[in-house]
Amino acid sequence: MAPWGERLAGVRGVLLDISGVLYDSGAGGGTAIAGSVEAVARLKGSRLKVRFCTNESQKSRAELVGQLRRLGFDISEGEVTAPAPATCQILKERGLRPYLLIHDGRPVRSEFDQIDIINPNYAGESFSYQNMNNAFQVLMELENPVLISLGKGRYYKETSGLMLDVGPYMKALEYACGIKAEVVGKPSPEFFKSALQAIGVEAHQLLSM
Amino acid sequence: MAPWGERLAGVRGVLLDISGVLYDSGAGGGTAIAGSVEAVARLKGSRLKVRFCTNESQKSRAELVGQLRRLGFDISEGEVTAPAPATCQILKERGLRPYLLIHDGRPVRSEFDQIDIINPNYAGESFSYQNMNNAFQVLMELENPVLISLGKGRYYKETSGLMLDVGPYMKALEYACGIKAEVVGKPSPEFFKSALQAIGVEAHQLLSM
Repeated sequence: MAPWGERLAGVRGVLLDISGVLYDSGAGGGTAIAGSVEAVARLKGSRLKVRFCTNESQKSRAELVGQLRRLGFDISEGEVTAPAPATCQILKERGLRPYLLIHDGRPVRSEFDQIDIINPNYAGESFSYQNMNNAFQVLMELENPVLISLGKGRYYKETSGLMLDVGPYMKALEYACGIKAEVVGKPSPEFFKSALQAIGVEAHQLLSM
Repeated sequence: MAPWGERLAGVRGVLLDISGVLYDSGAGGGTAIAGSVEAVARLKGSRLKVRFCTNESQKSRAELVGQLRRLGFDISEGEVTAPAPATCQILKERGLRPYLLIHDGRPVRSEFDQIDIINPNYAGESFSYQNMNNAFQVLMELENPVLISLGKGRYYKETSGLMLDVGPYMKALEYACGIKAEVVGKPSPEFFKSALQAIGVEAHQLLSM
């Protein structure tokens, strides 16, 4: 195999994941992974373009970036590609007015502040039967129903144990309505493309980690 | 095509669906479909074995049969094959102790009165995020997780509109856990077989409607 220097010759940009790569989430804002603060600083001081690409869909970018800055990372909101703002972009481009199903009181809600939404009964726990049924009824009344899912994770870990992620609820609505969701987030090629466009780098010039 | 008399020559039993065949559900116990009370009486007066086979998984057999008797049908609990009692049979045979996810306050709960269940946090709306997550955690802790679904309906109609049925929630847990549910109810062959066994009739001797 070619040495690293040679293999990296054509690389112009780096996509960095956040959770599990830069830091481990947890109580009190989580902890930086050893060496990652310095690695980000060196990458940003190099000739390489750097973009942060995450499937985080519970925190807003503001909250996420604030947390990372407190851990010592040189990062700003404008450098982050995340499902919620990518979804807002799609909603605006297509002129869609969404019914939002967002996990109970999550700060990611603020990402949608500029979007006109349909949520007549928005209250309490988002993945309640009532809210799921409202979303289902909205979809069934449309001639061309659009279901956008912020990622398709099966579950995530919290200190209290495993927690159902958005993917199972996406599958539930897909099955109920006989439709296929559009996944905004990794591993969707469109999502990666939007991250690349933000730094003006082609896929073959990219290192992703 | 052969005349009815000839085609029915080998028929020894009849499986009758209930909802949409005998009656239409609705406010005040629903209404009998024209001619169905008389048809059931004639079938039961004939040489044919009759069995009622339903995917009803919200009402208990007692409630369903009471409702049908008030509409004039000659029917008793012992003549009904339904997902809940069929599931109890499976649970007993395999010695399984279930975590029950049953829609809020449904009378079908009484079918499981004789079953030892795991429901530490059973309260309120069954398809809440909390109850779904509890079921998910129970499944993930098992070496060989078993998910039994009472039917796999996508939705049903109420006067207030379309309502999510159990199928979407089955799909959610299948996806979350990477498992395949066992469906107890139509169109599962096992379910039909149990109805046939109850009247001692072979599949080729059956008329189903």
